[in-house]
Amino acid sequence: MNKVSIFPVMHLPEFDTGHEIVKELIEVLEENKISLEDSDVIVITQKIISKVEGRKIDINKEDIEEVIKNESLQIIRKRGETIIAKTKHGFICANAGIDKSNIEEGFALLLPEDPDKTCRDIRKKIEHETGKKISVIICDTFGRAWRKGQTNVAIGSSGIEPLESYIGEKDTFDNELFATEIAIVDELAGAAELVMKKSDNIPIVIIKGVKYNISDLGVDELIRNPEEDFFL
Amino acid sequence: MNKVSIFPVMHLPEFDTGHEIVKELIEVLEENKISLEDSDVIVITQKIISKVEGRKIDINKEDIEEVIKNESLQIIRKRGETIIAKTKHGFICANAGIDKSNIEEGFALLLPEDPDKTCRDIRKKIEHETGKKISVIICDTFGRAWRKGQTNVAIGSSGIEPLESYIGEKDTFDNELFATEIAIVDELAGAAELVMKKSDNIPIVIIKGVKYNISDLGVDELIRNPEEDFFL
Repeated sequence: MNKVSIFPVMHLPEFDTGHEIVKELIEVLEENKISLEDSDVIVITQKIISKVEGRKIDINKEDIEEVIKNESLQIIRKRGETIIAKTKHGFICANAGIDKSNIEEGFALLLPEDPDKTCRDIRKKIEHETGKKISVIICDTFGRAWRKGQTNVAIGSSGIEPLESYIGEKDTFDNELFATEIAIVDELAGAAELVMKKSDNIPIVIIKGVKYNISDLGVDELIRNPEEDFFL
Repeated sequence: MNKVSIFPVMHLPEFDTGHEIVKELIEVLEENKISLEDSDVIVITQKIISKVEGRKIDINKEDIEEVIKNESLQIIRKRGETIIAKTKHGFICANAGIDKSNIEEGFALLLPEDPDKTCRDIRKKIEHETGKKISVIICDTFGRAWRKGQTNVAIGSSGIEPLESYIGEKDTFDNELFATEIAIVDELAGAAELVMKKSDNIPIVIIKGVKYNISDLGVDELIRNPEEDFFL
């Protein structure tokens, strides 16, 4: 079995509304000594997607709690200044994913409207430009229940089966594996974070050597139905 | 910035009670063309730790629900056959982490009693044998609230700060970063899973090129106090 390698993409511009991510990425690949191959996974931070898609708000002009409500299906918990909300996409996270870091003071970024669609568009453009069959993930750092700290998770994906199922397969003792489905897109997002680092400026990471199933499904596949969720 | 590389360790034996993990690992490194360097992260699956430590039960002789209760501080949710329990370590997971896969039929494995201590012991042995300053993580696949699928997370660690804090640091826009603490040990556990694969037999993975802070803290640092938890 081969190793997996995680490459940070350096020398990208400071992205803003209207920038073309695919064009900018392809332009710096050579400088980064990276050539795209089939099965590469391209992990892009939500920040630059939101900027390029103009999902920026002026927090002096808008009531942030109102904006959080507008971006949410449901407020799950509220204690003091912390609001845990279920976004329109179905993600459960602090402040509906609205964040004031890595943007000019006085502004905040909303999550992309349809991250799975954005991944699909980016994947198709890259495949058109390079002739390689790749997959694309958009990631963001979310907190979780019970465990301290945040981890990078996938909020959009295209070209990769988000949930890899081992149901029906056998382990090395010939036991059938029950109920094991690995959220591989979340593990890839977490792996990408290892070279992204919050305070550096690494918005795109390329992961090589991962075996995965090609699929048309997106991250919306990971959203658990409320009636199947023990913790809502 | 350098890339991160994730190497599966092949050719290890089928581990059982009394096997010496460090000895077996060091013996196969050359065959794997891996040489240990300072800052390498060694990720070991819970399965082999539990086996080596004799945490095996005969499920024909013991009442599994009784065993789950004995291994737990608290039963968090119970619906049908699914029990979500808080283990003595403070982990919240299905069946208190007791698992019937990757072991002979009729048996199940309990979680290690003190995974942080096991990591410390393994780290010290490896450092003694090789003279390299490394870190060790024990991982297991847990489900999570709200999102389908399982991901690999850390249940023990040594030599690495489990929670990397960016509080007080500045982003590229010179904004101070608030409340950003990355659970890097969980991201490393997830990254390791990318080459482990559930039905293959890859119990140890070596990750090279990660920048992290050396620390005496273990994964118990990640357990959130119940009074600070919104979802208990």
